[in-house]
Amino acid sequence: MELEEIYQLVAEDLAKVKRQLEAVTEVDYPPLAEMLRHILEGGKGIRPALTLLAGRFYNYNLDLLLPMATAVELMHTATLVHDDAIDKSAVRRGRPTVNQLWGEDRAVLLGDYVFARAGEFAADTGNLRVIKIFSQTLQTISAGEIVQTNDAFKLEQSRQHYLDRIASKTASLFSLATISGAILSDAPEGSIRILEDYGFKLGVAFQIVDDILDFVGTEEEMGKPIGSDLSQGTLTLPAMLLLEQYPDDNPVKELFNNPHMPEKDKQQKIRRAIEMVAPSPIVKQCYQIASDYCVQACRDLDKLPAKPCRQALKELADLVISRKN
Amino acid sequence: MELEEIYQLVAEDLAKVKRQLEAVTEVDYPPLAEMLRHILEGGKGIRPALTLLAGRFYNYNLDLLLPMATAVELMHTATLVHDDAIDKSAVRRGRPTVNQLWGEDRAVLLGDYVFARAGEFAADTGNLRVIKIFSQTLQTISAGEIVQTNDAFKLEQSRQHYLDRIASKTASLFSLATISGAILSDAPEGSIRILEDYGFKLGVAFQIVDDILDFVGTEEEMGKPIGSDLSQGTLTLPAMLLLEQYPDDNPVKELFNNPHMPEKDKQQKIRRAIEMVAPSPIVKQCYQIASDYCVQACRDLDKLPAKPCRQALKELADLVISRKN
Repeated sequence: MELEEIYQLVAEDLAKVKRQLEAVTEVDYPPLAEMLRHILEGGKGIRPALTLLAGRFYNYNLDLLLPMATAVELMHTATLVHDDAIDKSAVRRGRPTVNQLWGEDRAVLLGDYVFARAGEFAADTGNLRVIKIFSQTLQTISAGEIVQTNDAFKLEQSRQHYLDRIASKTASLFSLATISGAILSDAPEGSIRILEDYGFKLGVAFQIVDDILDFVGTEEEMGKPIGSDLSQGTLTLPAMLLLEQYPDDNPVKELFNNPHMPEKDKQQKIRRAIEMVAPSPIVKQCYQIASDYCVQACRDLDKLPAKPCRQALKELADLVISRKN
Repeated sequence: MELEEIYQLVAEDLAKVKRQLEAVTEVDYPPLAEMLRHILEGGKGIRPALTLLAGRFYNYNLDLLLPMATAVELMHTATLVHDDAIDKSAVRRGRPTVNQLWGEDRAVLLGDYVFARAGEFAADTGNLRVIKIFSQTLQTISAGEIVQTNDAFKLEQSRQHYLDRIASKTASLFSLATISGAILSDAPEGSIRILEDYGFKLGVAFQIVDDILDFVGTEEEMGKPIGSDLSQGTLTLPAMLLLEQYPDDNPVKELFNNPHMPEKDKQQKIRRAIEMVAPSPIVKQCYQIASDYCVQACRDLDKLPAKPCRQALKELADLVISRKN
């Protein structure tokens, strides 16, 4: 099943989210409008789709779900803009980043603007519980990114540490996407918990797959250079397993012990790490861990009403594993 | 009258805001706690004081005003953290900036965290109108900062352009401070407008004085280097008047026409601009414009109930003009 088919249930409403995002770009100041257009094109829309799907089990109220789905996508977009500025990344979604085109200063300010715009959409739901979770999620993401920055080029990191980190920086936003959909559709408390938990675990799996694809994907598919995590000194699951399984003569160890080595040497270490991981059992081991999270994510879904959206969420979990970008 | 005396009315509650800010620093992750402690010390507290004072005319409800005053101060703090990162400023409030101590990356992420924390406090008011204005204000500030970045080192800027810029980047937050206090104390609509307008015009005056002090203040009083606006290529009112009144052989013109001149030459131009402005009538002319805004700010205050907070707001306007830092 393809993303398009799963989205079919919410395709019409996802198109409305897209129109809301286009409306966000209609501001008076042309340079701001141009930057907004640049960043609000080309997202996969998985997070707003989650809000809409999670909102279909009970009282599907588009007047509330639409602003929330838009808020979730905007928050995601703003975090990407700031991440790219911080990482000095040049390419995202196959196109130059904001910092590349307009400088890091404008990337910081644009991200702030988009966070605030997201906050306004969240406020449009009129639901104080959702508004509060929205703000808390951004705190969790930012704190997670600070942890990641502080942990850069550190070799001694436990598996739990990695999982905590991706929980903060990725799973929290997936969880916001689903819990908000549940709350705004008047789901009972038990169902809210199930959908929150689904989003959270799906998010962990999604990030593990992202981290795998940074080793085995292609720049063309990913829309950004491969090996960028190692380049930033971010120790992800595949790199951890590589360290465990090849403790001697390990390119990750060499790179992390010498983070200021010449760029050419750095790229050579990254290439070697990729070449070691790609054909090894590590890829399968990582996918297994991601799959386990997806299984856990779906575990309690059958306690929810048997509606097409339930099947869609299950299939989305499969797709998170099989995706190539 | 000193700031302390004006604050007297709200001193006790301002101390509670301070305790809320201290509580913000109590997070699980020590490196984040340390950064939060660093930025949440030493603010003058003028913005939260405005919220508390504006909230004293009608139904003074501290349960709502306290989180809002805290939100306002946190938003202000977060904008400073991002501004300093963007400007690569080394000193603020007489101490090293976050970017200086921990790098620009962490400054961006810390600012994001604090914006989000501010949003959570705003949500704690439970007032959707205030929450929405809160998000809109951050959009206005960020967009204003983008305009300022785009206008850097541009000589052709009208007075109106300058006023629009400082309205966005400074007056909008002052206006948030007062309108939120008014709304949360159940002020009638007419009074809300008067207090919003007071905050806005006070904010314009405050920024004009800030811009004057960047020429005539001392680094010791200001807690940051003098001439920093020119150094960033920001054309403020004193610099505009200097350009108008000395169109030839003008150091601002020379600097703005050669933004990439050697740092030593740059500092020499800035020093000369300061030496020209400081003893000239320009300072008085700028103060006159700021004073006019303060007069306008207070114009309709007498339509509000004759309470001590009304007199305090008038005296605060005087203090905005006479302040030395």
